[in-house]
Amino acid sequence: MNSQLTGTADTNSKYLKKYEIVCDLGEGYGRYTVAPDEEIMKIIDVANIACGFHGGDYNIMRRMVKLAKKFNVKVGSHPGFPDRMGFGRRKWDISPEEVYNMVIYQTGALKAFLETEGMKLNHIKPHGELYFYVERNKEIMKAVLTAAKNLNVPVVGAKNKDYARMAEQMGVDFIQELYVDIDWTVDGKLVPVAESRTKNPQIIHDTILKAGWTDSITSLDNKKVTLNFGPNPFLLCLHSDFSDALENIKVARKAIDLLNQKK
Amino acid sequence: MNSQLTGTADTNSKYLKKYEIVCDLGEGYGRYTVAPDEEIMKIIDVANIACGFHGGDYNIMRRMVKLAKKFNVKVGSHPGFPDRMGFGRRKWDISPEEVYNMVIYQTGALKAFLETEGMKLNHIKPHGELYFYVERNKEIMKAVLTAAKNLNVPVVGAKNKDYARMAEQMGVDFIQELYVDIDWTVDGKLVPVAESRTKNPQIIHDTILKAGWTDSITSLDNKKVTLNFGPNPFLLCLHSDFSDALENIKVARKAIDLLNQKK
Amino acid sequence: MNSQLTGTADTNSKYLKKYEIVCDLGEGYGRYTVAPDEEIMKIIDVANIACGFHGGDYNIMRRMVKLAKKFNVKVGSHPGFPDRMGFGRRKWDISPEEVYNMVIYQTGALKAFLETEGMKLNHIKPHGELYFYVERNKEIMKAVLTAAKNLNVPVVGAKNKDYARMAEQMGVDFIQELYVDIDWTVDGKLVPVAESRTKNPQIIHDTILKAGWTDSITSLDNKKVTLNFGPNPFLLCLHSDFSDALENIKVARKAIDLLNQKK
Amino acid sequence: MNSQLTGTADTNSKYLKKYEIVCDLGEGYGRYTVAPDEEIMKIIDVANIACGFHGGDYNIMRRMVKLAKKFNVKVGSHPGFPDRMGFGRRKWDISPEEVYNMVIYQTGALKAFLETEGMKLNHIKPHGELYFYVERNKEIMKAVLTAAKNLNVPVVGAKNKDYARMAEQMGVDFIQELYVDIDWTVDGKLVPVAESRTKNPQIIHDTILKAGWTDSITSLDNKKVTLNFGPNPFLLCLHSDFSDALENIKVARKAIDLLNQKK
Repeated sequence: MNSQLTGTADTNSKYLKKYEIVCDLGEGYGRYTVAPDEEIMKIIDVANIACGFHGGDYNIMRRMVKLAKKFNVKVGSHPGFPDRMGFGRRKWDISPEEVYNMVIYQTGALKAFLETEGMKLNHIKPHGELYFYVERNKEIMKAVLTAAKNLNVPVVGAKNKDYARMAEQMGVDFIQELYVDIDWTVDGKLVPVAESRTKNPQIIHDTILKAGWTDSITSLDNKKVTLNFGPNPFLLCLHSDFSDALENIKVARKAIDLLNQKK
Repeated sequence: MNSQLTGTADTNSKYLKKYEIVCDLGEGYGRYTVAPDEEIMKIIDVANIACGFHGGDYNIMRRMVKLAKKFNVKVGSHPGFPDRMGFGRRKWDISPEEVYNMVIYQTGALKAFLETEGMKLNHIKPHGELYFYVERNKEIMKAVLTAAKNLNVPVVGAKNKDYARMAEQMGVDFIQELYVDIDWTVDGKLVPVAESRTKNPQIIHDTILKAGWTDSITSLDNKKVTLNFGPNPFLLCLHSDFSDALENIKVARKAIDLLNQKK
Repeated sequence: MNSQLTGTADTNSKYLKKYEIVCDLGEGYGRYTVAPDEEIMKIIDVANIACGFHGGDYNIMRRMVKLAKKFNVKVGSHPGFPDRMGFGRRKWDISPEEVYNMVIYQTGALKAFLETEGMKLNHIKPHGELYFYVERNKEIMKAVLTAAKNLNVPVVGAKNKDYARMAEQMGVDFIQELYVDIDWTVDGKLVPVAESRTKNPQIIHDTILKAGWTDSITSLDNKKVTLNFGPNPFLLCLHSDFSDALENIKVARKAIDLLNQKK
Repeated sequence: MNSQLTGTADTNSKYLKKYEIVCDLGEGYGRYTVAPDEEIMKIIDVANIACGFHGGDYNIMRRMVKLAKKFNVKVGSHPGFPDRMGFGRRKWDISPEEVYNMVIYQTGALKAFLETEGMKLNHIKPHGELYFYVERNKEIMKAVLTAAKNLNVPVVGAKNKDYARMAEQMGVDFIQELYVDIDWTVDGKLVPVAESRTKNPQIIHDTILKAGWTDSITSLDNKKVTLNFGPNPFLLCLHSDFSDALENIKVARKAIDLLNQKK
């Protein structure tokens, strides 16, 4: 039995005129680093910038914003739990109101750096456990969407029927992204990083082309998963913190450019 | 020998149509509190809201912004050093660039809460050691003024020739405030809280009236200090964390209202 | 139907030669305070000192340890989640190994202050959500008991069959305490603070005497709960952060002294 | 004009029966890392373990302590300023009493991990700006030495007449270490990392042998600096966070082993 993801991402066409690559950047702290941010920024289209809670700090945020400006990269906020030690990945029982407040706080901080550089906030993309919390809990989903609505920006996320529907009901645009550097289950869910097979750059390259050409990918158990992006380009999300991240992103850039030429 | 403070505060007239009271609020953290924020908010005109570094957190900030809206209080950001344990009062060797970044970050976070409530940021007023750092170090002064300029808001501060002049040169408005709950030296400098005499509410009441009527106050050693506000109303700043804070602010409200009636 | 708590607390008799009062102290941070620590320290027998995670800091810890020494108060560690903003009361998904590590870290820090004052660590008493986590999760219970075992000190806690049994199996002494400033259910569980009736000092006074004289208390729905302390004195735990805390502790002191005279 | 460092390090002979290598380890945080801690631990003799303030956390500390036990490495505490963002390298105006408290807190936390593994604390070595603060300010020096005295352990530091003398007066042993991976001035001071020439592994190897054989090193301006270790072996300190750290430490191991064979 093959599967189909939720229908055509209507709002994608509003934001994506071509296939684009997005990465999480600026997740270091002080002298600590996670990814080769400068190298990656040069070859991507969109960056989710950490806002100082799970990762990042005000110095890194400014540096990322200026880099993004230099390389003409769109910037979204990447708010997370106030849990730097756990990199925003520990489960925490936090109320919807508090989640709303932490998203507004972090996104506002980033917006100010963008504003002073003459740039606009592109979207909000929750990080780590905050993202899974959104997918798991309707009240949290609503809190994040309310923050996006009040700040008048779209959200970015993997394909998710409930998320897409609630966003639509609330009048918030939802930009749907595609992961190809980890595995998928047959029902279109992402396999957690720890259980996913390592994808070498060649596999990533080929998966991207296949996704663009056939609107489908192959699941962990070798079934076809129809993506349902239809004729619209997608936003490709790649992990910046994998050991091969830079190499992955470089080959992805080639594949994405190829898809864009063919369009 | 008596003294005169720096000349007429031109930019005050642009912002102050009447005498107003400002307090630092929202400086608690989680379950910790510093001042009776709710009670004070009801009777003041302007609030400097802590932004989560020396005090405050995202929950408190939202509560303060909503309270301010309810009681029609203007809101400025009150950024401080990232030193909650020292309440932003320990000296720290921080570069101008980092100071700029921390002011932008904190002020941006507050701005987002204001924006989502349909309010505007009124000004920036650095807290504690960051404020003294501004007065002591021209590069830090410039960093804070650049942040204000880039966010297009005035700064608030006690009368200070250098600060006023640099603000003017940089095209940043400078709203000059007046302290009456601590002592003054004859040359117009504030006496540190620890060395200042306790002012009871009656003294505070009378000092305000005298300041409004005679454009002067009396220094610790009984000399006259001319304030040079001229015909302009001033912004009265009262400590919210003194043990008698609420009582002080209540009598100050009466004195300020009296001054405004006479205008 | 009345109820009985778990049988005679054997290990209590090893540590308690008389009825004693314990309070959580040192839970402020920097300039923030929670309770009148100095006043309370004078009239209690045992203190649980916060260790800098949910509350407290290294300056407060040293002050508390010196105060305890001055007033001949025994000191236990009061470790909590690394969640100062939530005062260690938010639920968090933390592994048993991490819980073990955070208990060792915090308790070790306190032990060093005790050691340098020539004092000994009396016990470990987890704080807030860490305490409830222990009661809820056997792996966490074991992690905390392992920490106590490895540091060779007893744990303190409310009567709890599972906790007492596992402690016994692991060779860790368990000092059972009694709360009287909040309500009890008929099956001997504490009613959460928010749902409990306010106890005025007179009620607290009388409840203590009744507990000492009849080995029982009355539950929220007016049923008798047998405490099963038998002939042994108990350790009375009072909240230091209630608005009437100091008054409560003062009358409790009188009741406890009366019980000790009668023994 | 050549120079001589302060006379024979008497207390070194008490602790060092042979030449040994020491490194700062465990300075990561959560998922952040600074150095290849595991690899380095295998080939050194002594480790300064970060205690959770400038770097490190309770999970890392336990891992480091267990690794040290496994590879028979002695462990000292490496306390720093509570400034993770600045990696404990920003100047901060902190009182001697607060410095004492932060050293006791951090060292106590580490001691508990050691105690539960059956190990003993070997020494205290302040980190970064706290170390420079000790060298710069007699009151801070005394605060750190008092902490060491009260915890009954020696301090470790680079040769420094004032530090050695005050330690001796206070009855605290002072283990003097030698740096060879950065430059020296002719008067025996270390050149800050940023201004020092990069030392390749071969230079490090040869400098160690020369230091052991001739009791001297060559300064940045090509002068001889007599080390005055006399017949005693020294404690060689190598940076674990240089890009070539692991390679440097491997060749240093060879040189140190050679010196020890010849003894």
